[in-house]
Amino acid sequence: MKIAIDAMGGDFAPKSTVEGAIEAAKRFNDIEIVLVGKTEEINKVKTEPFPKNLTIQHAEEVILTEDEPARAVRKKKEASLVVASRMVKEKEVDAVITAGNTGAFMASGLLIAGRLAGIERPALAPVLPTMGENEILILDVGANMDPKPEHLVQYAVMGKIYSEQVLGIQNPRIGLLNVGTEDTKGNELTKKTFPLLKALSVQFVGNVEARDVLNGVCDVLITDGFSGNILLKTTEGVASTVFQLLKKEFMHNTLTKLAAAILKPGLKNFKKKLDYSEVGGAPLLGVNGAFIKAHGSSDSKAIMNAVRQARLFLKNQVIEKIEQEIAKGVENQNDDK
Amino acid sequence: MKIAIDAMGGDFAPKSTVEGAIEAAKRFNDIEIVLVGKTEEINKVKTEPFPKNLTIQHAEEVILTEDEPARAVRKKKEASLVVASRMVKEKEVDAVITAGNTGAFMASGLLIAGRLAGIERPALAPVLPTMGENEILILDVGANMDPKPEHLVQYAVMGKIYSEQVLGIQNPRIGLLNVGTEDTKGNELTKKTFPLLKALSVQFVGNVEARDVLNGVCDVLITDGFSGNILLKTTEGVASTVFQLLKKEFMHNTLTKLAAAILKPGLKNFKKKLDYSEVGGAPLLGVNGAFIKAHGSSDSKAIMNAVRQARLFLKNQVIEKIEQEIAKGVENQNDDK
Repeated sequence: MKIAIDAMGGDFAPKSTVEGAIEAAKRFNDIEIVLVGKTEEINKVKTEPFPKNLTIQHAEEVILTEDEPARAVRKKKEASLVVASRMVKEKEVDAVITAGNTGAFMASGLLIAGRLAGIERPALAPVLPTMGENEILILDVGANMDPKPEHLVQYAVMGKIYSEQVLGIQNPRIGLLNVGTEDTKGNELTKKTFPLLKALSVQFVGNVEARDVLNGVCDVLITDGFSGNILLKTTEGVASTVFQLLKKEFMHNTLTKLAAAILKPGLKNFKKKLDYSEVGGAPLLGVNGAFIKAHGSSDSKAIMNAVRQARLFLKNQVIEKIEQEIAKGVENQNDDK
Repeated sequence: MKIAIDAMGGDFAPKSTVEGAIEAAKRFNDIEIVLVGKTEEINKVKTEPFPKNLTIQHAEEVILTEDEPARAVRKKKEASLVVASRMVKEKEVDAVITAGNTGAFMASGLLIAGRLAGIERPALAPVLPTMGENEILILDVGANMDPKPEHLVQYAVMGKIYSEQVLGIQNPRIGLLNVGTEDTKGNELTKKTFPLLKALSVQFVGNVEARDVLNGVCDVLITDGFSGNILLKTTEGVASTVFQLLKKEFMHNTLTKLAAAILKPGLKNFKKKLDYSEVGGAPLLGVNGAFIKAHGSSDSKAIMNAVRQARLFLKNQVIEKIEQEIAKGVENQNDDK
C-alpha cells in the first residue's frame, strides 16, 4: 500500500504534512508514504531523518487556496496535488491525501484519476460528529450539485461500504436528508429517491430532518451536493458563532473570566466535540483511488489520522467492494429487463 | 385593520393566544382583533374582561400538530385556522396569525386565501438573528420545494418590500444562498437565478455561503424551500445541541456549577441571541392577506409581537406594494417583447 501526501496543501503545510508523514510512517510499517512537493521546502522543515518507508517525489508547482480549481488542475501540471493524482492514475501509488484546495482535490480525482466503472457521479463524504456515540458520514457535500435519484442510490451503496470498512460500523443506518420525516415529504429529487433507497439492500431508516442530524439518528446521510454543502457550512457557521458569543460572555468581567477558567477543560472537550475537522478526512468516493481530503487547518496529527484512514481504505479494499456492489446493481437491472 | 388570531394553535394555546390578544388589543387601539376558536375554552383561560377591540369568533374544530396539513385544511372546515383563513378570503379580516401546524398554515394561505395576482409561488419567510446588528429574512424555507429561477426573483421582490416595510431596513442587501461566493458557483437553479437577480432593481450582494449567514452579510436571503429548510433546521439543531453540551459541562461538579451560576445572566442573553423564535413570526408572502406564522412555542409576548408585525404589514400596505412591483415586472417583460 502506497500513499501519496500532497506536502504543499493546507494552512500549516509543509510543516504539518512532513511531521504527519513521519509520524505515520513510523507507526504503520505496512505502508509506504510519498511526500509530493518542493523537495527543498520539505527538507527545510523536517526535524528528523525520514524512516525507510517515507520518500519524496519532487513537484515544482503548488495549487493555492485562491486558485480556480478545475483551471488550476489543468494548467499547473507540475503542482504537487496534480503530480500525486497522476501517480494514482499510473498505479505508482494507491492513495492521495491533501489538506489543500477542496475544489482542486475534487477536480484531480475526477479529471486525473477518473471515475470507477459504473459510478456516474463521485461524492465528497465528510464525517460529522454527533451528540450520540456515532459519527455521521454525509454524501454528497459538493462534488455534484444536481444529482439524479440514481446517483443518490449509488451514494448509499458507497456510503454503506465506506462506513463498514473504514469507520467500522456494522450494517450502518442510511438516512435521506429531507424537510420532514414522513415518507412522502420533500422535493422532486428526494421523493423519487425515497422508494429507490427503500428497495435497496441497505438498512434504510427513511427521511432525516436537518435538526436531528447531530443527534445521530443515522450513520450515513444521503443528500445532493448543494443541500449537503448548506448543512455542513451551516453547522460550521453556527458552531463558530457560538464560540464567538461564548467568548464575549466570558470576557465580561473578572468574575466571569474566573468562571470561564474553571470551565475551560470541559469547554475544550465541548469544542472538540463540535469541531467536525477532528473526525478526519473526507473521501471522494467513486473515483479510481483512495482520495482523502483533510481539513485545511490540519495539523500533523490530522495528517497522520488521514493516513490511518487511507490505510484502512486500501487494506479493506473499499474500491474493489464498491465496484463489486455497483456491478451487482447493474446485473440486477439487466435481470429486470 | 382587523387581525384574526387562531386561538387554538401553538404549544401553549389557548392561554398564550388569549393573553397575547388582550395585551395587543390594549396596546394598539387602531386595530381590531378576533380570537378564532372554541369560545368556551377561550373564556375559561381569560383572566380579565376583553377590551372593546377584541372579540371571539367561535370555531368548533382544531387542527393538531400531527394532522396531515393539506388534508386537515380540506376536511376540518370548522377548524379555527380554516375559519380564520376564510375570514381573510371574505374580507372580514385582513390578517391571520397562528402558532399552530406550519404545513396547515401554508395550505390555508394557498388554498383558502389564494395567491396574489402575478405571484406564482408564495414563500415562507422567517427571520434569523445574526451576530451583527441586523436580522436576516429568509425566503423560502418550505412553501415551495422545487422553485424555478423566476420564482426566486419574485422572492427577492417580496423580500425587499417586507424587509423595508415591516423590518424597517432601507434598501436591504439581497443575497443568494449558495455553495460559494463566486458568481459562477452553484447548482442549475442558482446559476440561472444569479443573472436575473443582478438585473433586478434591488441591492443584490451576490452569492452567500451558509457559514456566513449568521454574520449578517445580507438582509434578505433568497433560496429554494428545500435548502432554506435545511439551513433553518440545521441552525436550530446545532444551537440546541450546543446548549445540551454546555449544560452537561456545567453540571460536571460543584465548582463548574458555581462557575455556571456566575455566567448565567450572560448565557441567558447568549441563548436569546441564538433563539430564532425570539425574532417574531414568519410571513407567508405572496398570498392574499397578511398570514403570519408564530413559533409553535410562542408565549403571550410572542403572540403580541406577531400582532405588532401583522399591524405593520397592513399599515404599510405590503400586499399592495407587492402587487404593484410584480405588475411593473410583468409590464417590463411585455415592453421587452
